[in-house]
Amino acid sequence: MRPSGRNPDQMRKIQFTRNYTKHAEGSVLVEFGETKVICTATVEERTPRWLKDANQGWVTAEYGMLPRSTGSRMGREASRGKQGGRTMEIQRLIGRSLRAAVDLNALGERTITLDCDVIQADGGTRTASISGAYVALCDAIKGLIHTEKLEKEPLHGQVASVSVGIYEGTSVLDLDYAEDSSAETDMNVVMNDAGAFIEVQGTAEGHAFRKDELQNMLDLAEKGIQEIMQAQREALAS
Amino acid sequence: MRPSGRNPDQMRKIQFTRNYTKHAEGSVLVEFGETKVICTATVEERTPRWLKDANQGWVTAEYGMLPRSTGSRMGREASRGKQGGRTMEIQRLIGRSLRAAVDLNALGERTITLDCDVIQADGGTRTASISGAYVALCDAIKGLIHTEKLEKEPLHGQVASVSVGIYEGTSVLDLDYAEDSSAETDMNVVMNDAGAFIEVQGTAEGHAFRKDELQNMLDLAEKGIQEIMQAQREALAS
Amino acid sequence: MRPSGRNPDQMRKIQFTRNYTKHAEGSVLVEFGETKVICTATVEERTPRWLKDANQGWVTAEYGMLPRSTGSRMGREASRGKQGGRTMEIQRLIGRSLRAAVDLNALGERTITLDCDVIQADGGTRTASISGAYVALCDAIKGLIHTEKLEKEPLHGQVASVSVGIYEGTSVLDLDYAEDSSAETDMNVVMNDAGAFIEVQGTAEGHAFRKDELQNMLDLAEKGIQEIMQAQREALAS
Amino acid sequence: MRPSGRNPDQMRKIQFTRNYTKHAEGSVLVEFGETKVICTATVEERTPRWLKDANQGWVTAEYGMLPRSTGSRMGREASRGKQGGRTMEIQRLIGRSLRAAVDLNALGERTITLDCDVIQADGGTRTASISGAYVALCDAIKGLIHTEKLEKEPLHGQVASVSVGIYEGTSVLDLDYAEDSSAETDMNVVMNDAGAFIEVQGTAEGHAFRKDELQNMLDLAEKGIQEIMQAQREALAS
Amino acid sequence: MRPSGRNPDQMRKIQFTRNYTKHAEGSVLVEFGETKVICTATVEERTPRWLKDANQGWVTAEYGMLPRSTGSRMGREASRGKQGGRTMEIQRLIGRSLRAAVDLNALGERTITLDCDVIQADGGTRTASISGAYVALCDAIKGLIHTEKLEKEPLHGQVASVSVGIYEGTSVLDLDYAEDSSAETDMNVVMNDAGAFIEVQGTAEGHAFRKDELQNMLDLAEKGIQEIMQAQREALAS
Amino acid sequence: MRPSGRNPDQMRKIQFTRNYTKHAEGSVLVEFGETKVICTATVEERTPRWLKDANQGWVTAEYGMLPRSTGSRMGREASRGKQGGRTMEIQRLIGRSLRAAVDLNALGERTITLDCDVIQADGGTRTASISGAYVALCDAIKGLIHTEKLEKEPLHGQVASVSVGIYEGTSVLDLDYAEDSSAETDMNVVMNDAGAFIEVQGTAEGHAFRKDELQNMLDLAEKGIQEIMQAQREALAS
Repeated sequence: MRPSGRNPDQMRKIQFTRNYTKHAEGSVLVEFGETKVICTATVEERTPRWLKDANQGWVTAEYGMLPRSTGSRMGREASRGKQGGRTMEIQRLIGRSLRAAVDLNALGERTITLDCDVIQADGGTRTASISGAYVALCDAIKGLIHTEKLEKEPLHGQVASVSVGIYEGTSVLDLDYAEDSSAETDMNVVMNDAGAFIEVQGTAEGHAFRKDELQNMLDLAEKGIQEIMQAQREALAS
Repeated sequence: MRPSGRNPDQMRKIQFTRNYTKHAEGSVLVEFGETKVICTATVEERTPRWLKDANQGWVTAEYGMLPRSTGSRMGREASRGKQGGRTMEIQRLIGRSLRAAVDLNALGERTITLDCDVIQADGGTRTASISGAYVALCDAIKGLIHTEKLEKEPLHGQVASVSVGIYEGTSVLDLDYAEDSSAETDMNVVMNDAGAFIEVQGTAEGHAFRKDELQNMLDLAEKGIQEIMQAQREALAS
Repeated sequence: MRPSGRNPDQMRKIQFTRNYTKHAEGSVLVEFGETKVICTATVEERTPRWLKDANQGWVTAEYGMLPRSTGSRMGREASRGKQGGRTMEIQRLIGRSLRAAVDLNALGERTITLDCDVIQADGGTRTASISGAYVALCDAIKGLIHTEKLEKEPLHGQVASVSVGIYEGTSVLDLDYAEDSSAETDMNVVMNDAGAFIEVQGTAEGHAFRKDELQNMLDLAEKGIQEIMQAQREALAS
Repeated sequence: MRPSGRNPDQMRKIQFTRNYTKHAEGSVLVEFGETKVICTATVEERTPRWLKDANQGWVTAEYGMLPRSTGSRMGREASRGKQGGRTMEIQRLIGRSLRAAVDLNALGERTITLDCDVIQADGGTRTASISGAYVALCDAIKGLIHTEKLEKEPLHGQVASVSVGIYEGTSVLDLDYAEDSSAETDMNVVMNDAGAFIEVQGTAEGHAFRKDELQNMLDLAEKGIQEIMQAQREALAS
Repeated sequence: MRPSGRNPDQMRKIQFTRNYTKHAEGSVLVEFGETKVICTATVEERTPRWLKDANQGWVTAEYGMLPRSTGSRMGREASRGKQGGRTMEIQRLIGRSLRAAVDLNALGERTITLDCDVIQADGGTRTASISGAYVALCDAIKGLIHTEKLEKEPLHGQVASVSVGIYEGTSVLDLDYAEDSSAETDMNVVMNDAGAFIEVQGTAEGHAFRKDELQNMLDLAEKGIQEIMQAQREALAS
Repeated sequence: MRPSGRNPDQMRKIQFTRNYTKHAEGSVLVEFGETKVICTATVEERTPRWLKDANQGWVTAEYGMLPRSTGSRMGREASRGKQGGRTMEIQRLIGRSLRAAVDLNALGERTITLDCDVIQADGGTRTASISGAYVALCDAIKGLIHTEKLEKEPLHGQVASVSVGIYEGTSVLDLDYAEDSSAETDMNVVMNDAGAFIEVQGTAEGHAFRKDELQNMLDLAEKGIQEIMQAQREALAS
């Protein structure tokens, strides 16, 4: 029995609110149940120094949590003077995942930065971030095409992400905080719309997981990601 | 003529949404027109080291802006590894302003931290932060009284803040970004409900201001702050 | 009765010693009673990167305190690895105040940096810094004109600053440390020689101040600043 | 055809040299072909502050690369003043992987720190680090048991790690740098001696991988890890 | 011929001004010709954590240069966020040199911090700092004895320092900036009043120096240090 | 009697292993008894910014210790976020010492960086680093000549270094950790093959040293350095 009463293969309510803030080229509030993340996409007409003369674009991400997005207040990273290891790990993951959907040559010499800022955390902030950042990225690229800065569509796939895990011996989909904090295994999966894997990151928190358990979790993830992709498509169509 | 079409003494629409996020002891979304700030109040049962054995509480503030709360993306302070001078200036101002409303001895040996995070900026983020943080602080203190951690009300006044300035030769109330960025003088005023000043910070951006101009601006500020206080009271009553 | 025995409207002894150290383009020891600050002006033939191609100059300031300028030793900011919020606030104030007296276009593509280093603190270090930095700035600009690097005078006003406050219920001028540390209200005022305000920063430390108290303090500040300006002119004439 | 001429399922030569340096409680030079990492285990009779009163031990890891362990010199992280995201990600992975093999309650209130310093890199430094750190950890724990600081064996499993990937369309085991830098998919797998997974981290560098490709890679990883475990056992027996 | 016209064995004018600032337990302005350093001694009734329970005192030093103490402005270390290698080297040298004169057990569980801040540099700032810090240290210790916090004199020797070098082929004493910047060899010597060496730091800037040249420089240093010690004694007697 | 049983003028066993790692232009493992340092030389076709247009090369050094190269674990400098004073002091010394052997004009506009990483420490790590870095530097320069990037030999001397000290009243050569940690005086000497001094750094740890003791130590250092230079020549000839 899950704390939320959901079935093992049941997602939380997924919602994408586009144009959530007014300045960014893409701005999306993504909600996975009580987890809420503001994802913005910023287009800048320059690339990092190490891509100079490479004649291609870049997609990168930064991640942060408001100090009181969590049950007890976390110290503000800006105030402590550095980003922690978890933050770095997550923002590298978001960046890699989104780059997997973009033809960087077709993007031209510009950078799209995806900022994912968690305003309320209830488990799964990184997978919500990836899923929401995809929608913000789409809006930013639509803008580039609309203003004729881009001729060719640089997006070559849809990207979404969900967490799965083993909670009290059962494989479950889309863990909330109550489950996540006591799960035996936690796995984050990023997939594209061809049903292939972009990232698979599974960690045994309690005991190690067997190959059949891995298989079950991947099946659940696939189901969840199809639902998220459906929600992404509906949001982008509206 | 103001860019927004407002009269010189006209505030933007002010709104306080309480319980905006679920974890904090006080959580308020404050809106001054298009400026939107999440203000949370966190209660912790400890005080800073330098107050050890002082037998009193503390109220402090931190301020941040989401990277894309502004027209062009600002570098994330956590990533740059330090908070800039403007951030420090603002969070010190917020902390001082709120402490002016609290009897720190009556608060007991605990700290209330007010986090003000700007999700959309359109001028006046610091005055919106102070005004919103006051509401979050009230909610946090109500909680302490409700759970009988506090016997005596430590709040001894209401606090609100507004900006005034001289725009194209005219004194105006509650500057938005279009006005702020080209104002000749910019002044932030913090007052209490007795009509007295907690902070007055006026800066000549273009030419220096005369005593009569200062007087006009203070009169406008007083009018605006009365309206904000009315909105605070209504939000707290609902 | 003031701790120093001064009348409420009486300044401490003000002194400007020019050419205090030998390397800088302007070098002034400013003394407001026992408060002593070395103010140097450095001219560099380059501007900050963000002013590239702007065809104008820049005036900026940095502030520091020797670790034992104060009653108990303060940690050295260089050793702690960052400047505190108070330092940043003060150096931003000094920079803004001096820029208000300079035509940055007439200055040409050069930067003047005003370093204000407190060697002995007894209250009012920021107002002494502004007043002393003005004299150092004048000397640096004189040098530029003398060596024909500048044709046109870029200074278009005189700048001085003083603190005022409410001490034991009475408005007093030019607070020393004994007064400052127990004042109910503390206000720093920067004015030009036309009698107009460049900065007004008033903070209620104890109880909030009324409009008539503000008025009294501004009148005292005006009187004090006239005396400081007189001392500046005499120092520059000698 | 692999650049090294190896078969797709062929490991590089694996070697563990115990007692490589003399001060540490465990000190191992691990070699996966030309990749060489010094892994030391340090025992300290204290635990991190956040485990105070938890009555358990802790196992953690730090990772570094000598500046010229790589083809072109990397800036020294100590000199740049912070550890990069990749370093943090790797040292968090090493720590988690080893903790999965240790009963932290049985360890008592002490910390074992595993330092993995790459002196020569040729692909697979993180998997070599995990595999070598396990041997260093065993030696450190043997010492604790030998000196009767521990009564009960806190190790409850053997841990090893290997990388697998898809190189020119073929699933291959234990990628060297030439393969790693152009692989389409790169996966790091950590397993225990019961054949279960502790970590699975797969990343599509080029195109996303299908479920059958994932399966092939996991099979290869299992084979490689069995060989590494055999080498670990032989080294520990000698 | 030396740029200053001095004889090879001639010191610059040495001056120690005690009670230079009012807050510190010892405060000395030391001048070696145009080199001017404020040396303060601060007594604090605590010792560093690593001396806890060691039942002894500590003497340490910090060194800084005002940004415009030199011919061209140096970036402020507080603003750059770290102390450079040269600063660290010098402050470690000052601390070691002064500790050589103090019986740390007799000092009791307190720390004396010597802050040496260069307000004008013209070569030899580190040797002037050591020589001036000795006088400040004496004043601080006198105060401890006078207030009966110390029963027994913890100072067991006098310490002074001077630079010597080879300038245009000749060994010279007490190099000023003009000499220092083009010297072939530069040596800093710290001695006690028994004529023994506390530190000898010689560096070949141009060509390496022979044993007889080393001998000549040490003889010059001995002569200079006797003169500095005489000046220290006179200052302390006045 | 020395702890190691060596005669006062007896060096530890000295060994230079060239081509210790495969990527660097020069790579040497230097051993002074149980002290082991990896010294690599990296050639980069660029010079520091401050040498722009100077038409010369640069030689610099960085130094580090693996956390568990020592008896108890030292915190990793990369993790603490800065290099300590001792590290900076040593790497500046190594750089200066090697530059004394190189004609920087003949080197051309390139930088050679010497990384000295201590993998096992038993006293004398800085002198071993200098001696080993010289061999790595020779190999890097041989490579430049061999590939005809350099026409003219930029090395104009051989450099080696050894420590001497006073241990239990006797001058001894090449102190190991047991001696170093209780020596009364510790001196590091760098010489060239003409028998002249590049650096002499003597520090009285216990009591100050007399001129005749200094003389004895320098004689011992000269003997030791001749032996090291012989070992360097043999290693380079093999």
